[in-house]
Amino acid sequence: VSRTRICSVTPDDVIVRGRSLPRELIGKLSFTEMAWLQALGAMPTSDQTAILDACLVTMMEHGLTPSVIAARATYGAAPESIQGAVASGLLAVGATFAGSMEDCGRLLVRIVNGEPAETIVRDHRGRGRPVPGFGHPVHRPEDPRAVRLLALAKERSVAAEHCAALELLSRSVDAALGRPLPVNATGAFAAVLLDAGAPVGILRGFALVARSAGLVGHLLEEQTDPVSSVIADAAERAVAYEPK
Amino acid sequence: VSRTRICSVTPDDVIVRGRSLPRELIGKLSFTEMAWLQALGAMPTSDQTAILDACLVTMMEHGLTPSVIAARATYGAAPESIQGAVASGLLAVGATFAGSMEDCGRLLVRIVNGEPAETIVRDHRGRGRPVPGFGHPVHRPEDPRAVRLLALAKERSVAAEHCAALELLSRSVDAALGRPLPVNATGAFAAVLLDAGAPVGILRGFALVARSAGLVGHLLEEQTDPVSSVIADAAERAVAYEPK
Amino acid sequence: VSRTRICSVTPDDVIVRGRSLPRELIGKLSFTEMAWLQALGAMPTSDQTAILDACLVTMMEHGLTPSVIAARATYGAAPESIQGAVASGLLAVGATFAGSMEDCGRLLVRIVNGEPAETIVRDHRGRGRPVPGFGHPVHRPEDPRAVRLLALAKERSVAAEHCAALELLSRSVDAALGRPLPVNATGAFAAVLLDAGAPVGILRGFALVARSAGLVGHLLEEQTDPVSSVIADAAERAVAYEPK
Amino acid sequence: VSRTRICSVTPDDVIVRGRSLPRELIGKLSFTEMAWLQALGAMPTSDQTAILDACLVTMMEHGLTPSVIAARATYGAAPESIQGAVASGLLAVGATFAGSMEDCGRLLVRIVNGEPAETIVRDHRGRGRPVPGFGHPVHRPEDPRAVRLLALAKERSVAAEHCAALELLSRSVDAALGRPLPVNATGAFAAVLLDAGAPVGILRGFALVARSAGLVGHLLEEQTDPVSSVIADAAERAVAYEPK
Repeated sequence: VSRTRICSVTPDDVIVRGRSLPRELIGKLSFTEMAWLQALGAMPTSDQTAILDACLVTMMEHGLTPSVIAARATYGAAPESIQGAVASGLLAVGATFAGSMEDCGRLLVRIVNGEPAETIVRDHRGRGRPVPGFGHPVHRPEDPRAVRLLALAKERSVAAEHCAALELLSRSVDAALGRPLPVNATGAFAAVLLDAGAPVGILRGFALVARSAGLVGHLLEEQTDPVSSVIADAAERAVAYEPK
Repeated sequence: VSRTRICSVTPDDVIVRGRSLPRELIGKLSFTEMAWLQALGAMPTSDQTAILDACLVTMMEHGLTPSVIAARATYGAAPESIQGAVASGLLAVGATFAGSMEDCGRLLVRIVNGEPAETIVRDHRGRGRPVPGFGHPVHRPEDPRAVRLLALAKERSVAAEHCAALELLSRSVDAALGRPLPVNATGAFAAVLLDAGAPVGILRGFALVARSAGLVGHLLEEQTDPVSSVIADAAERAVAYEPK
Repeated sequence: VSRTRICSVTPDDVIVRGRSLPRELIGKLSFTEMAWLQALGAMPTSDQTAILDACLVTMMEHGLTPSVIAARATYGAAPESIQGAVASGLLAVGATFAGSMEDCGRLLVRIVNGEPAETIVRDHRGRGRPVPGFGHPVHRPEDPRAVRLLALAKERSVAAEHCAALELLSRSVDAALGRPLPVNATGAFAAVLLDAGAPVGILRGFALVARSAGLVGHLLEEQTDPVSSVIADAAERAVAYEPK
Repeated sequence: VSRTRICSVTPDDVIVRGRSLPRELIGKLSFTEMAWLQALGAMPTSDQTAILDACLVTMMEHGLTPSVIAARATYGAAPESIQGAVASGLLAVGATFAGSMEDCGRLLVRIVNGEPAETIVRDHRGRGRPVPGFGHPVHRPEDPRAVRLLALAKERSVAAEHCAALELLSRSVDAALGRPLPVNATGAFAAVLLDAGAPVGILRGFALVARSAGLVGHLLEEQTDPVSSVIADAAERAVAYEPK
């Protein structure tokens, strides 16, 4: 028999992390406090809750991203299953967009453990790979979400070694490039959550939680003001058939 | 050109529902407030936030459900993609388990609109279908989560016509069955959120948001204390091959 | 202990439906024969194989459908997981597009069982719902895939009561509309597969198999000649932000 | 305007890879021929078709794998969406199980390009990672599917440099381990398909096609003889709650 530390269900109770869901949690915890307790096994401090709230708010919505396009296209074709549309959208939270906080977070942990930021940047450039957590196709000269998240972590005195590591990494990225490349929202997300005490393995998971709420908003709009067929028509016009 | 009311991205800002994400939302709204704003387009009242928080906390976790089994099995086989494992788990939030708040909510709306609860119950029984929002395989004689959610809606004076409709429906279900069948968590979830002003089309969506946080907790545990192979072995022993 | 009739694995063999996979199946069966055996538990006749092959070929590809848009958008954002992109695309095989063979098939079974086609058409029109298996946004005056599939079933003498039911249903649809509405590919798919002996519960499943191969082709093209960012740009231009 | 080489849809035709779907493909190509044409843009030779058929037959079914568990658990909870259950199952075709043909294929390409097999094996062992394509938890002393696939490639004279590379890699794996570790089905799948002319980027894609048919068979069985609740019960008994 193996074990889980998360939950036990009995006829008259649901115990989550040692607490009674109906008697101790429902109506007493916010979603964010409960998400922290569920994942990490301890009640968050008010600073931890504030940082997680801020990170989830940051990643919830960013316009017609690939994730939203996938979700809306799926919902238009299969409206019988909103869970399918949300799943489709979450599958697009990956290494290229929206999911890079995990890769960035792993670099920050390595820097905190003593690896020089320069080595990491050189290694990425040597393999022709961008450093995760930096740069954005739209936001210039800086990503206003990253600026806000990092400022908040300082206001709350949560900012510590991982935020410092992000700054070291940022200077190395700029030096290697010969021009400033801004920290983006996923980089700041990683640094402030790690400093708040979240493990690196949960970072993309929390991003998925944020995105699920963003997607649900888009799908509610799709119910009354659908744009999925407009997107499909635009896609068809933008891509020509050339068998060659 | 079609339109969306949700979001616009510019180089130095992200506007969500008419508000600046970095200047007006990050660090100022909780996740739950932001999720309501994102989906419904207006800031929630404190009662609306409290009810949505309570509903999300209620649906986040319920042990080794099919949803968790799917997510953990997927993660064990494809650990390169936590988004795939969360998606797999959300796909199991459907009509049978965890997703029945939407079907129940539609019945409550019909009762509020004047349809007799008896007719609805008779119709379901005639087609051999259970009334969504009632009964639970484990929780007896009542679902403690439903009791708590409905009490909270009364404490907050949010309980109104949809909670009343649920009570009417409950009496009809009991009368038709000749014994009490408890309101379950999805039935209470539907009634209190509808009374708080959420549209019926968002109900399963909010459940997906709650479950995504629940799943992320299980997947973090799977990273350090995996049980997916234990589940696979148990499954194999429980199902025999009989070609007949 | 419950049971499965499908497969047993031993150290030196894999038994599928009572046959040794390495000794009796690999190199001896085509994919289509194996898919039939896997699902239905018996070796298909050559006519059954021919019909299933034709149906799978029919549904594999149909241009930049919502399913392809979802898959390509997902792959562009999360190239680390081709399984995620295929899953995203399959989630869009639903009631509106590509998945309607199942709903149509259920109507054909009812007609074969004696229900008048007129009743079914009247019932659908009364609820404002289209009859599944009829009409197509692009193919006029007829869907050339449906014509070909139905002709093939006649050539092979497979066409029987379900093809006849489809014709009855078609006449009722035309009569109710006052103009011809063509049988589409999903309607023909349902009729010929049912007449070939497939159960109605497998119809959408076989469509998913066909689409999975279609999607894989698009994702291979996306690896070398990506259009997902072109689609995202086109989508963004086609949908304006109007907060109102 | 960007371009695709795959498909164009007109009112009276569907052109796939330059051929009319209704006039030149339906009823003339097998599924496997069409899947090759769809993905690779040219008609396969009879040897290519035979190898792809054999590979798809090989990977279709392997008992109650994590993929099947995820799909059945999802279907039991959300029977309204068979596409969701298939998607859930495909999401478990990943790096650990069933999806390792792609990683193995990349190694074979490197060996064909001149890299010594020893270097590759040493590198994997140095990072504590298994060499993909080798070893199996059940099949000993060899994987009978791999043996059959490789023999078939020789019979057909398809076996060439990638099969030779697999043999080199196999010898290096055995030497490093000090005992024979068998080539598994995914390793053989990679070698024979690469020698048949398939690009490495399609390998996992073809596995997904095979698995989709396998999953559909399981879901049809789940419709009449469900075991998903048996699996859930077995899982619950196998995993104890220990909050610590």
